[in-house]
Amino acid sequence: MEIAYYQNKFIDVDSPALPIDERGHQFGDGVYEYVRVYDGTPLFLAEHLDRLEKSAAEIKLTLPYRRDEITGIIYEGIKRSSLKEAAVYFQITRGIAPRNHSFPNVKAVFSMTVKEATIFTDEARNKGISVMLKQDERWANCFIKSLNLLPNVLSKQEAIEKGYDEAIFVHEDFVREGTSCNVFIVKDGTLYTPPATRYILHGITRKAVLDCAREYDIPVREQAINTTFFKNCDEAFITSTSIEIMPIYSIEDQTLPKERPVTERLYSAYQSFYKQEV
Amino acid sequence: MEIAYYQNKFIDVDSPALPIDERGHQFGDGVYEYVRVYDGTPLFLAEHLDRLEKSAAEIKLTLPYRRDEITGIIYEGIKRSSLKEAAVYFQITRGIAPRNHSFPNVKAVFSMTVKEATIFTDEARNKGISVMLKQDERWANCFIKSLNLLPNVLSKQEAIEKGYDEAIFVHEDFVREGTSCNVFIVKDGTLYTPPATRYILHGITRKAVLDCAREYDIPVREQAINTTFFKNCDEAFITSTSIEIMPIYSIEDQTLPKERPVTERLYSAYQSFYKQEV
Repeated sequence: MEIAYYQNKFIDVDSPALPIDERGHQFGDGVYEYVRVYDGTPLFLAEHLDRLEKSAAEIKLTLPYRRDEITGIIYEGIKRSSLKEAAVYFQITRGIAPRNHSFPNVKAVFSMTVKEATIFTDEARNKGISVMLKQDERWANCFIKSLNLLPNVLSKQEAIEKGYDEAIFVHEDFVREGTSCNVFIVKDGTLYTPPATRYILHGITRKAVLDCAREYDIPVREQAINTTFFKNCDEAFITSTSIEIMPIYSIEDQTLPKERPVTERLYSAYQSFYKQEV
Repeated sequence: MEIAYYQNKFIDVDSPALPIDERGHQFGDGVYEYVRVYDGTPLFLAEHLDRLEKSAAEIKLTLPYRRDEITGIIYEGIKRSSLKEAAVYFQITRGIAPRNHSFPNVKAVFSMTVKEATIFTDEARNKGISVMLKQDERWANCFIKSLNLLPNVLSKQEAIEKGYDEAIFVHEDFVREGTSCNVFIVKDGTLYTPPATRYILHGITRKAVLDCAREYDIPVREQAINTTFFKNCDEAFITSTSIEIMPIYSIEDQTLPKERPVTERLYSAYQSFYKQEV
């Protein structure tokens, strides 16, 4: 059963919860996280809470609850939902106050939904996704997991309308990330991904994949990838909490090879390392 | 009395209204307008509705009501509030749907508040405001009046914490606009303001001031203003729907002259041209 939480209480997902003068609603003034639950247990919860704290600090937002309280709400939500394979979305905004750009002197507000996770079939994962390149027009601080996601929304929709599954942001011919995922390529046995600058999200699955690669002695380079190198790779995939590791089968007009030995090895490593841990 | 409106009905401003899965709350996926009401009548309502339609078209958002219906809701809100000097804030989001970046197939949602307007005293207007310069880190489409306002919020707060009243965004040494206002300067009798590119909001008060200047035969140049020219101006002011025309008395360590003949003439023109019209 889907369940939600807003300002100190559990509610139905579709219940009216926020007043209009909510900083999330009017300014996108807040941060969020998305945690995948496997067999009743959230994966990488500590890492998600670390990042939440960093994002909040970057926008000078004081969290309304202690870390153990947030953990408690998340576990209680999972329990109430009775879901084993779940997606926990939570966000914290700067609270409820008359609209004014400067910070209000009120407590921040925590909201959450617990829903059934999207499960990707083997067939979907074998097929992979198609991507287009899209000029990055977002703000300069995409390492902050903020609620200002309009350019991501518009780029994702543009990709879909043009017949692709995802858009990959590019700046001055260099690949950054997708609309809600990081990007990796494999070339001559080496794994490449753009470095974790302020211009991309420092993905938790991204880091887990890098750890898996190091564990398996796959050479890793966090370095700038231009679009030519991207299109001429041997393998490419995206990573995110919800999609885990998903192969890319085409980059605009360029079809990638069907064999993906490194991607498969990493996906299998990700499964065995992390999913058994939870 | 303050009043609010959400999804087809009038409600109290502090009533729970939105569910968590609202595109405004989770993505800032929407656009807004802010209209000033003088003596019971909204000023420049047609211009605000024109801009709303343009912003909505830019983000491919279909408005949930016809233009005359929105006008009707605004007038009904003003009437129910019984306020003569009011501020009408309204925003339209891509609606209520399970969280997913791509567009949902649901109706957009209109929300509004009608509140007492902030009145600036003659004393405040004679004093003016102090401003700091701030590197513009916003996205590339600030002409869209969207709900992605986190960088504006952070910059406004930074200005206040540093002892200024407002932050003026600068890109490669050129002045753009404030966190919620446009910028003008006067030098040797000519009025200058940055051109209405995609990087700034095309302010309705900005346009009104330009019209006033032309009417009064004040030479006008819409051209790039670097920070040196900005700091060495004879007069400077900001404009917005709520603040109208507000002089700048200092730009960081630079104090501007106390005499502001052109600003005063424009403010008086703005008053007589437009406020008598409503």
